[in-house]
Amino acid sequence: MMILMKREATEEQIQAVCEAIHEHGLESLVLPGGQRVAVGIPSAIPPELRPVLDQHLSAMDGVDQVIHITRPYKLASRDFHPHDTVVRVGRVEIGGGRFAVMAGPCAVESYEQTLEAARAVKAAGAQVLRAGAYKPRTSPYSFQGLQREGLEILRTVAQEVDILTVSEVVDPRDVETAAEYIDILQIGARNMQNFPLLVEVGKSRKPVLLKRSPSATIDEWLAAAEYLLTNGNEQVMLCERGIAPLDRAYVRNTLDINAVPVIKYHSHLPIIVDPSHGIGHARYVPAVALAATAAGADGLLIEVHPHPDRALSDGVQSLNPEAFTQLMAQISAIRAALAPLNAK
Amino acid sequence: MMILMKREATEEQIQAVCEAIHEHGLESLVLPGGQRVAVGIPSAIPPELRPVLDQHLSAMDGVDQVIHITRPYKLASRDFHPHDTVVRVGRVEIGGGRFAVMAGPCAVESYEQTLEAARAVKAAGAQVLRAGAYKPRTSPYSFQGLQREGLEILRTVAQEVDILTVSEVVDPRDVETAAEYIDILQIGARNMQNFPLLVEVGKSRKPVLLKRSPSATIDEWLAAAEYLLTNGNEQVMLCERGIAPLDRAYVRNTLDINAVPVIKYHSHLPIIVDPSHGIGHARYVPAVALAATAAGADGLLIEVHPHPDRALSDGVQSLNPEAFTQLMAQISAIRAALAPLNAK
Amino acid sequence: MMILMKREATEEQIQAVCEAIHEHGLESLVLPGGQRVAVGIPSAIPPELRPVLDQHLSAMDGVDQVIHITRPYKLASRDFHPHDTVVRVGRVEIGGGRFAVMAGPCAVESYEQTLEAARAVKAAGAQVLRAGAYKPRTSPYSFQGLQREGLEILRTVAQEVDILTVSEVVDPRDVETAAEYIDILQIGARNMQNFPLLVEVGKSRKPVLLKRSPSATIDEWLAAAEYLLTNGNEQVMLCERGIAPLDRAYVRNTLDINAVPVIKYHSHLPIIVDPSHGIGHARYVPAVALAATAAGADGLLIEVHPHPDRALSDGVQSLNPEAFTQLMAQISAIRAALAPLNAK
Amino acid sequence: MMILMKREATEEQIQAVCEAIHEHGLESLVLPGGQRVAVGIPSAIPPELRPVLDQHLSAMDGVDQVIHITRPYKLASRDFHPHDTVVRVGRVEIGGGRFAVMAGPCAVESYEQTLEAARAVKAAGAQVLRAGAYKPRTSPYSFQGLQREGLEILRTVAQEVDILTVSEVVDPRDVETAAEYIDILQIGARNMQNFPLLVEVGKSRKPVLLKRSPSATIDEWLAAAEYLLTNGNEQVMLCERGIAPLDRAYVRNTLDINAVPVIKYHSHLPIIVDPSHGIGHARYVPAVALAATAAGADGLLIEVHPHPDRALSDGVQSLNPEAFTQLMAQISAIRAALAPLNAK
Repeated sequence: MMILMKREATEEQIQAVCEAIHEHGLESLVLPGGQRVAVGIPSAIPPELRPVLDQHLSAMDGVDQVIHITRPYKLASRDFHPHDTVVRVGRVEIGGGRFAVMAGPCAVESYEQTLEAARAVKAAGAQVLRAGAYKPRTSPYSFQGLQREGLEILRTVAQEVDILTVSEVVDPRDVETAAEYIDILQIGARNMQNFPLLVEVGKSRKPVLLKRSPSATIDEWLAAAEYLLTNGNEQVMLCERGIAPLDRAYVRNTLDINAVPVIKYHSHLPIIVDPSHGIGHARYVPAVALAATAAGADGLLIEVHPHPDRALSDGVQSLNPEAFTQLMAQISAIRAALAPLNAK
Repeated sequence: MMILMKREATEEQIQAVCEAIHEHGLESLVLPGGQRVAVGIPSAIPPELRPVLDQHLSAMDGVDQVIHITRPYKLASRDFHPHDTVVRVGRVEIGGGRFAVMAGPCAVESYEQTLEAARAVKAAGAQVLRAGAYKPRTSPYSFQGLQREGLEILRTVAQEVDILTVSEVVDPRDVETAAEYIDILQIGARNMQNFPLLVEVGKSRKPVLLKRSPSATIDEWLAAAEYLLTNGNEQVMLCERGIAPLDRAYVRNTLDINAVPVIKYHSHLPIIVDPSHGIGHARYVPAVALAATAAGADGLLIEVHPHPDRALSDGVQSLNPEAFTQLMAQISAIRAALAPLNAK
Repeated sequence: MMILMKREATEEQIQAVCEAIHEHGLESLVLPGGQRVAVGIPSAIPPELRPVLDQHLSAMDGVDQVIHITRPYKLASRDFHPHDTVVRVGRVEIGGGRFAVMAGPCAVESYEQTLEAARAVKAAGAQVLRAGAYKPRTSPYSFQGLQREGLEILRTVAQEVDILTVSEVVDPRDVETAAEYIDILQIGARNMQNFPLLVEVGKSRKPVLLKRSPSATIDEWLAAAEYLLTNGNEQVMLCERGIAPLDRAYVRNTLDINAVPVIKYHSHLPIIVDPSHGIGHARYVPAVALAATAAGADGLLIEVHPHPDRALSDGVQSLNPEAFTQLMAQISAIRAALAPLNAK
Repeated sequence: MMILMKREATEEQIQAVCEAIHEHGLESLVLPGGQRVAVGIPSAIPPELRPVLDQHLSAMDGVDQVIHITRPYKLASRDFHPHDTVVRVGRVEIGGGRFAVMAGPCAVESYEQTLEAARAVKAAGAQVLRAGAYKPRTSPYSFQGLQREGLEILRTVAQEVDILTVSEVVDPRDVETAAEYIDILQIGARNMQNFPLLVEVGKSRKPVLLKRSPSATIDEWLAAAEYLLTNGNEQVMLCERGIAPLDRAYVRNTLDINAVPVIKYHSHLPIIVDPSHGIGHARYVPAVALAATAAGADGLLIEVHPHPDRALSDGVQSLNPEAFTQLMAQISAIRAALAPLNAK
């Protein structure tokens, strides 16, 4: 942490800042700059002390700005955990070079539709079936999901088809139940900072897929993961699904492809990409899915519906089984082509 | 709703779109454009039908884009409720020309700090005390609020000082309790689309302050208000608190001043502005608070702490009581100056 | 400047960074942090050396990030020029408490239209007539302005009505000519980083209005002003006109009201606000104009057209003379109300 | 085009809108919606008429909004030119399945550095050498390029090494000269809407690389290309180089990968991706370059410097020759893997 003083800061104010730092048991170091002085803290600051210190120092007379050098996350950082986390769900591994595709309809609509989707995505090579039972929808007039009944359909279908499942949970009161029915709990973009939900999912110890909020910085996203990790859940996967776009005329979101290498460098957690929400139109989804694969993502989350024009939600961005099958062949081709070259 | 066909759409595809519209009991009208055809629906579409229709038509062959002409909200719109909603909290009225200031510390830290803050903001003219008991914090290492104990302090102080209170609720399981302790329930920016929370707060029928998410469009924000309204709560105030900024070097958020006249034109709900989060640094807060007042906001939500440098959260953006008192005089001056000119 | 080393940086790499700093004639100071070391430069770095140093150090082995503590501008900063710049155009002063309104049509369309507009805005109290002769337009199919003929109309009308003029220049080849015809040269948002144009306008020594690009950070904007200042032009006014919006459904841009107090704190240059482009629809312009006035802007740039529905460009955001006259009364009322309270 | 009337619009106002449309020689069609009426124009509107009509109708009484159905570009659209444009530069073809890599240092610094870079990128397989002679720099204190001398070095090196060249031109006065020295004229992101420059480059008929401004929508970008096309230059390539980021803590820009499939669907012009500016740090560049390749880009523009730590600009994002050589192998592998699967 570095405290940048105002140009007109007095000697007394600089001294007071140093003393405030000492009160917290830390050392201070005055850096006599050109126009203005900075005060550095040349010691490790425990994460729980950082926000307190920031508050305290930022509001002191003569202080212009507190600059954070360390990040607001610790357990999610490679600094503390240099090796890739590998999440294990049943017999599937994700992260550390192991890649998985999660695919299926936006929502569980019926047993038949879910079964048809599950068979199609499994046949094409997906390891995990995605489908929503609880549907957070922008408008209260939209279909809100089959809820508990949807969970039951999901479990039945998963057993019948022999496939793993991922599904969103939106209410902390539903976590315990949902954890009995599905294999991976998804936290949606709108709930990335729903802290009571994060705490419950953290305690559940189930593998979890944490989507990024459309306005979340990398730091905010990893700090949200930190809520899961500090509550004892190490089975955390991050999911990039698009940030608020510059322009909604052609797309729904802007898939932040940069997040893939940035997360892989700074965190050990697997990074999954959702091209369906990331661009929002089926005809563009394959291009973005291939981009994410080539960029080094650890997996993909793709909307596939047996009959997109009859979907109760997100039909416009769902691939049909034929398009998905073709895409899976391209994904495999890219991974096979890059594998021998990645042996760094 | 208008369905824009692809340039290469066939007669059969256009016909199929018209039939799909008829299936839903609506009329269709083919608009033979220059390069491409559009199909219009010249009848009122019930709000619950809109998303279904959008899904269905968007995914049909030959369709390029579905253009929405009506907005995803109804009860929040002036179309259905032309006159300003006036929210009544105790003896205070907000909206329809009545203006209120809600001020106080970010968090309830202790009985003494809350009492001192309450006295200071009341003395300066604020009608409502703001202070958080449940604190949603980006980092799990930050102070998370006194929770239930904070609610009790708030109620005690409010009675002692004779002031109304507003405080955030973050968990649907806490709504019932919180509603007994405080006068206005706040839904924070991170929870704007926490639908289970919106439903509980909607059912509570308490006055509610709905903050805008930093990436929410006007439509998404008003659709979130719609969750409160459709659950029977008409006492809804909207709160603009800043959107994701272009640049975090000088500010924490970008206060969207444009939202004030846009909301007032399209919705009947009162619009409150939070300049403290909206810019994020105490020295800039007065300028933004005055801007919001002049733009026609129905109220302000301002962080005031008796001793900003000892605040446990958000000290850097909190005004001290002296600065707040001076600001209140400026706010009154602007309102008095504009009042005789606003009688359009 | 501070150089943050990677967690795995070696002693040799840290030493090499220090030596590189010494090569440039500067001191270095090693800050032994918790997980990683930082190297500070506790001396004033001349502005021309900063980018070189940044390049050099950023690319060295073991370096994670170079953190700039000083800003990329110098002459535009209050650090070097603590008092407000007052720009003088004829008998009008702008900045340092002096406020001016520049109003008129988007484009010079004809002598008659310009004359009518000039009379109307002068009658309402505007000091400067705005109107474009060179019109940079998004589409090549839009009206591109009367160019040289427009300049002549502007000069004729200005003399006839006795009003000052501001008009945009878009081509470095036109600066000399334009400077003979108009009083204030405007650099448009699209040309904020058109450096050959900035250099020519800098050399002209005419008062200049520098609009902010919709994606420019505060630092980029002030660095653009620096091009004018280093070329000898001190008569620089900054103009906030809206940044890229989150959502184009209701507005054209997001007026960044935060920029007003931020610029006033960090720079001595006057800050003008353009509410017309800043929100993009006439019915919302007055609210934003009043907000800017209350926030402390030094002036406003407002589109006014005698007959908005016949305007050749930007009619949708132009006020008619009646609405502008009413707005001017409100602006005066706010300034009069705040004046006695601002004597800090 | 569709004109959405206000809810309170009168019969006379609707009638007036229809008449205004007829005045322009077009048909109108009233769509009697639920709460509000819309007026459609079921005929092709010539591009030059669109903005005039928009102005006229938007400002009429009773009109709420003018909705554009057709895009602001014509020559750049696939509607008018269904087949991929193939740009030919010497013996190299770009577009329509032909892929090219343009690589080299940010700036021409000296003959030796340029020669070393040219040899290195050619050896690795690049077809075009990139290097800037005119350097538009955010700060006036940064290195501004060798200008004319830089062009001469570029030409000399290109002949010596037998490689094509691309270089930026920033001033309309330099276009004629630059066109004699280099093979592809680059228009930088800051100059995307520098219309006098676009006109000169359009007239030059040289192959051109048009970078996207960081705040440009797809429509604004293609409308800028339209300036080149309407001036007779059909040799236009688009270059995505990143939009304004949500967060500058880890990256310089957000590479908009979505732009690749969107441009390929709506335009026939080749789309090139610049991963170097698109993310801004060398260690992340390969991931983004591979993503763009997999997404279907027609080429890449990559910064490569023989000695990044001694670069006079953008060293931090430049690959060294070894990293570039490795990346080229990966790019080829991806293209080879996808080729047999793309035969749709």
